Amino acid sequence: MKIAVLGAATTKFGELWHISPRDLVKEAVSEALDQSGCSRSQIEAIFVGNMLSGVLGGQENLGAFFAEELNLPVSAMKVEGACASGGLAVHAGVMAITSSLYQTILVVGVEKMTDHKPEEVAKSLMGAGSDVERQAGATFPGLYALMARAHMKKYGTTEKDMASVAVKNHYHASLNSHAQFTRPITLEQVLTSSIVASPLKLLDCSPISDGAAAVVLSKNKKQKTKNKKQVYITASVVATDSLGLAERQDLTTIDAAVRAAKKAYKMAGITPGDIDVAEVHDCFTIAEIIAMEDLGFFKKGKAAASIREGKTTLGGRPVINTSGGLKACGHPVGATGVKQIVEIYKQLKGTAGKKQVKGAKIGLTHNVGGSGATAVIHILRRD
Amino acid sequence: MKIAVLGAATTKFGELWHISPRDLVKEAVSEALDQSGCSRSQIEAIFVGNMLSGVLGGQENLGAFFAEELNLPVSAMKVEGACASGGLAVHAGVMAITSSLYQTILVVGVEKMTDHKPEEVAKSLMGAGSDVERQAGATFPGLYALMARAHMKKYGTTEKDMASVAVKNHYHASLNSHAQFTRPITLEQVLTSSIVASPLKLLDCSPISDGAAAVVLSKNKKQKTKNKKQVYITASVVATDSLGLAERQDLTTIDAAVRAAKKAYKMAGITPGDIDVAEVHDCFTIAEIIAMEDLGFFKKGKAAASIREGKTTLGGRPVINTSGGLKACGHPVGATGVKQIVEIYKQLKGTAGKKQVKGAKIGLTHNVGGSGATAVIHILRRD
Repeated sequence: MKIAVLGAATTKFGELWHISPRDLVKEAVSEALDQSGCSRSQIEAIFVGNMLSGVLGGQENLGAFFAEELNLPVSAMKVEGACASGGLAVHAGVMAITSSLYQTILVVGVEKMTDHKPEEVAKSLMGAGSDVERQAGATFPGLYALMARAHMKKYGTTEKDMASVAVKNHYHASLNSHAQFTRPITLEQVLTSSIVASPLKLLDCSPISDGAAAVVLSKNKKQKTKNKKQVYITASVVATDSLGLAERQDLTTIDAAVRAAKKAYKMAGITPGDIDVAEVHDCFTIAEIIAMEDLGFFKKGKAAASIREGKTTLGGRPVINTSGGLKACGHPVGATGVKQIVEIYKQLKGTAGKKQVKGAKIGLTHNVGGSGATAVIHILRRD
Repeated sequence: MKIAVLGAATTKFGELWHISPRDLVKEAVSEALDQSGCSRSQIEAIFVGNMLSGVLGGQENLGAFFAEELNLPVSAMKVEGACASGGLAVHAGVMAITSSLYQTILVVGVEKMTDHKPEEVAKSLMGAGSDVERQAGATFPGLYALMARAHMKKYGTTEKDMASVAVKNHYHASLNSHAQFTRPITLEQVLTSSIVASPLKLLDCSPISDGAAAVVLSKNKKQKTKNKKQVYITASVVATDSLGLAERQDLTTIDAAVRAAKKAYKMAGITPGDIDVAEVHDCFTIAEIIAMEDLGFFKKGKAAASIREGKTTLGGRPVINTSGGLKACGHPVGATGVKQIVEIYKQLKGTAGKKQVKGAKIGLTHNVGGSGATAVIHILRRD
């Protein structure tokens, strides 16, 4: 597989009360199109990743909605898979190009969450959980807290280990002007922040966010820009698992991510050791520790120490979540999986600014829906 | 394009208060898989068409949801585009196969609507409209009533013309044991039914329904069943237009359908005259009249007379909505576009029972989202 990424951009993520989803998408698309050197008329299809516009905003049919907003009356559809909606929209875009039914397409991810009451948002997000979990009153912090407890018990992972993920990602976000949180934080601050669902504290959790991201994908096409590094998607894999935690064999791993990653490495013809930089789904700090192991970057039970020692911080290898991740860059649900592609694209193009990983050639994105029901892995590389 | 349809089935459509979406989908998938001769383990991906499960049922991530229910931990995503969600899911399935990323996949369409208050359903359906229309208090019967008035004014279409569509589709549905309404009705009954949004009366409107449909698609694979007629999808096209009616040039046509159909005929290498049988999106009777013209079956303004004369009734040509259409077979939103494929598959296989169109070789499906914001056209043929 070799799908050219011709352009990729995000808006700033954050509490953007003054900006509508329309304007968020227009901003991201406009920048991505500019980079791509493509005219609007070359876009043949639009794939929109979004989870909550129906429940929170009363607006469905976002494919046609944004096609109209962008004045592109082309093929369009919304793709939904909870917090993996963005990654799934990219996968749909990859299928579109690989099928040869479309030559050049646009993937958009968007979510507008902060206009609503937190309770309302938390309730609507539980649409990603199993009905048993909803009926039991579970929330996602609670579900990930269970996973954290299991990981602590089995591998001796500590609250300090988890806190070190937050510290790293806030440090990375401090180098990213588009991040929701741009101040570095300390271990002490994380460990003394208020408890959300023990052992997870406020600063172990990703925020509720607004934001949009867009990428232009094309078949083998060269980008007509000065920067000659061409970035390609070389693997795109989706796998699923049970929605509920109770049906899983092991709470210390996300099996769908393990299976999707294995297949993606094979598809791209690489091993985990080839990855220079990755954006992973750190909805909670424990999720990044589990992801490090699921993706094969570290052996089971060994990721926490490596993160604590700075192996995944800028300057180490593989560098994880240079954007700040969901944790500090923000997590506008439908935008997240698309934003991950944008960040890796920038890293491979060498346009990531202060957070640039020197010489990055191969990158990976890891986008998860629910507590692990859906996993989407993409591998990107440059010439 | 030549995508083999290996199996296709629907549940009964109707007010199915005693059956959960889970069981509806299991029933349709089980029958489609049986027909296909494929084992469950051959299914590599699932595409789910659904509009309202989040808003009405609190359950999102239906890709992973049904993957779990079907015990298939494979790639899965939900596709949404209002009432065209099912057609878009089929289009995603076609992309999946054409891309060669997947060899054999399942498309599922499902909606569970009748458990909820009609006002709640009507409100959630307006998620397919523009925000201006929602703010103005418009509903879909009202929007299609505007289209009907425009068509009446421009082409002299009468309320009786529209009623004749309902009579035909209820007649077809009376031959379909899976239809929601299986009693024939008379012109008189339609014309004297209560007014919903003048000129549309109760019997001009499709109902609120529950139901599921499933199709198994595969790459060039032959079906291992006794019935040797092999059915293929030979065109799959999506187009979009403005969500709101106010932005359209002409209310007597659905431009997205016109554009999608033209492209589909070209893709399949046929003309409208080659179509033996079609399932079209008759959410309201006027919609079928407009579809007949948009699809090129009759000249603009000439469809009504042809329908009245029985040209599209069983025995005529092209025969339209042998299932009973949305109007009488029922309209479980996300299932509709998939059900249309099921009906044409049955017609081309020669297994449509009492409603069989003799010698049908080429068929078409026409699935519309909103009041014409999204149009999805598929063309199918048999060897």
